[in-house]
Amino acid sequence: MAAHDQSNGDSKLANGETTYFATNPRPASLDEHISSLAPFIADHVRKHSRVALVTSGGTTVPLENQTVRFIDNFSAGTRGATSAEYFLENGYAVIFLHRQFSLLPYSRHFSHSTNCFLDYMTTSSTGEVVIDGEYQAQMASVLQKYERAKREKMLLLLPFTSVNEYLWHLREIAMLMRPLGANGLFYLAAAVSDFFIPAERMVEHKIQSSEDFAHANHGTTSSTAQEERSPAAHMDGAKLVIDLDPVPKFLKQLVDVWSPKSMIVSFKLETDPSILAEKSRYALKKYSHDLVIGNMLNTRKHEVLFVSAAGGDQWIRVPTARRSKSVTAATMSEVRQATEMPLEIESLIVPEVARLHSEIISNGRSR
Amino acid sequence: MAAHDQSNGDSKLANGETTYFATNPRPASLDEHISSLAPFIADHVRKHSRVALVTSGGTTVPLENQTVRFIDNFSAGTRGATSAEYFLENGYAVIFLHRQFSLLPYSRHFSHSTNCFLDYMTTSSTGEVVIDGEYQAQMASVLQKYERAKREKMLLLLPFTSVNEYLWHLREIAMLMRPLGANGLFYLAAAVSDFFIPAERMVEHKIQSSEDFAHANHGTTSSTAQEERSPAAHMDGAKLVIDLDPVPKFLKQLVDVWSPKSMIVSFKLETDPSILAEKSRYALKKYSHDLVIGNMLNTRKHEVLFVSAAGGDQWIRVPTARRSKSVTAATMSEVRQATEMPLEIESLIVPEVARLHSEIISNGRSR
Repeated sequence: MAAHDQSNGDSKLANGETTYFATNPRPASLDEHISSLAPFIADHVRKHSRVALVTSGGTTVPLENQTVRFIDNFSAGTRGATSAEYFLENGYAVIFLHRQFSLLPYSRHFSHSTNCFLDYMTTSSTGEVVIDGEYQAQMASVLQKYERAKREKMLLLLPFTSVNEYLWHLREIAMLMRPLGANGLFYLAAAVSDFFIPAERMVEHKIQSSEDFAHANHGTTSSTAQEERSPAAHMDGAKLVIDLDPVPKFLKQLVDVWSPKSMIVSFKLETDPSILAEKSRYALKKYSHDLVIGNMLNTRKHEVLFVSAAGGDQWIRVPTARRSKSVTAATMSEVRQATEMPLEIESLIVPEVARLHSEIISNGRSR
Repeated sequence: MAAHDQSNGDSKLANGETTYFATNPRPASLDEHISSLAPFIADHVRKHSRVALVTSGGTTVPLENQTVRFIDNFSAGTRGATSAEYFLENGYAVIFLHRQFSLLPYSRHFSHSTNCFLDYMTTSSTGEVVIDGEYQAQMASVLQKYERAKREKMLLLLPFTSVNEYLWHLREIAMLMRPLGANGLFYLAAAVSDFFIPAERMVEHKIQSSEDFAHANHGTTSSTAQEERSPAAHMDGAKLVIDLDPVPKFLKQLVDVWSPKSMIVSFKLETDPSILAEKSRYALKKYSHDLVIGNMLNTRKHEVLFVSAAGGDQWIRVPTARRSKSVTAATMSEVRQATEMPLEIESLIVPEVARLHSEIISNGRSR
């Protein structure tokens, strides 16, 4: 598939990588998405409203052009979908760039349940299919908020699947958001792969396991960093070996070139607590954006670390008694103590982000 | 995590691999699932009903113990979820072993839509949340079938995520199904990875990209097939290199040892049409089970190839005019001709499988 080269000045990457967008294909969905993005953004430019791009869910890295296997990043999209609701409650219009079939604002309260969707339903006395009594109250209030967001054109849902689709969308949306000036906010909660397979190194067909070796559609010689065009996935005896290139650091481009006036918030997810703060500060320094929100895989639902040039380091925590039962086993002892109504940490994160955004709008940026 | 060694005679693998179940941990969910499986199967043994184990969705291969990244197999679970409904309509009880959050029987008609879940809902004149008029009729008939299946205890939903969870469940369920004798059917529609990372070679924490190299939690030396205990994923300069072991061929164990009296149906998904038939016959010969259903990624929704010892090769196709609009772009020209009501290919596959199952029950196996 030939790349549709859109390269303009900014497609040469700050970090010295050769241009990504000239060698990786423009996704088919982009033009259709632009046709809904353009009027959405123009409307909010007119209204001088704040607009948050919330990215959510994991990106895939296909191992074949006709994709049977892919590498994925763990994410149900909870952080992004939940945050999007609180941005809407805080007066923001939200562009929700999400992994297809990941959690969505509002519907998240009822989807990805371990029960079947239909367990919420029942047949009324009049034979109508209605929501079961125990879900009525919650469903009604959620439905109300969702319908208001739709009616007032405050929420735009855009799906992606691969890391390539994500990167093309991020660049396009960032450039479309420029007219918003400082009213634009990037809340990059998606779990974006650090590694990918360049289009030129992707095999066409499903990689055959060794038992079917006669059918294998590529050589057995192992590829190395030197042989740039060798297939990224290949058999080595009975083993499957995959070597992936680093994804160019687009955050630098976003901050310096694509949307320099917007507030930009990135996330750092780690599993090793000893490196979280250091890596978050490192990212803030390296990309000189506005805020890094650091979080640990096991505790992400009740504590995050804000690292900003303006505010330094600041932990935001849900009080033990307000922690939801949906947190991981690591904190089950705390959950047993939970007595009060659970509090979603995004209800603490988003207003604090909005406050920092107000400072940037009134005082100009700290970076 | 220490492996809970359940190994009995059958855990030594036919293909000479050292025992998988002694070295890869028993999933925590298995005991709870057994407690619902045992009475479900016992009930249908009493009733002499046929029981189909339908596996569905893709398996994950985690790259770290604290999983941030994983390899996945493309599958929404459409084949499995749709087939499960037709097995129920054909009088089978169904154990639905599915990837968590993949499509489920019945709810599949309304989930994984590109619309939001809440677009099906509306508020009635009485203020109740009800299903929107245009969806009422379809939802009512689906809900009816779903509630009957639940009421008559004909459907058991069991989720898995990783390939290790899948393999432990497959072995356990197969052994629990032995008392069903020839009334047992294995319909293995899940997209199971051919490769995995043995527990002993999995790194604990998220693999750090080279920019954070000071933090990397493992060496840079590349692992090879010889160094069995070297981490399966490691950095090589700026590249991420992953080497995966082949998954032992459990189908052989299933046929020969775990559940020899059941009818066993496997699937072959390919992207290269030139090898589909040959690979399907190869698999049937190699594992000497009852039926291989071959399908192509692009045409799987309107044609499949049955390869069986009894019946030879047989294509099953949906007439062009009955093909659903949900097929891939590859067949859109055909879709434009579609005039009649769409027909799901599983409504043709399942009765044919049931017919072959009847032959095996009455005449004994052909293998």
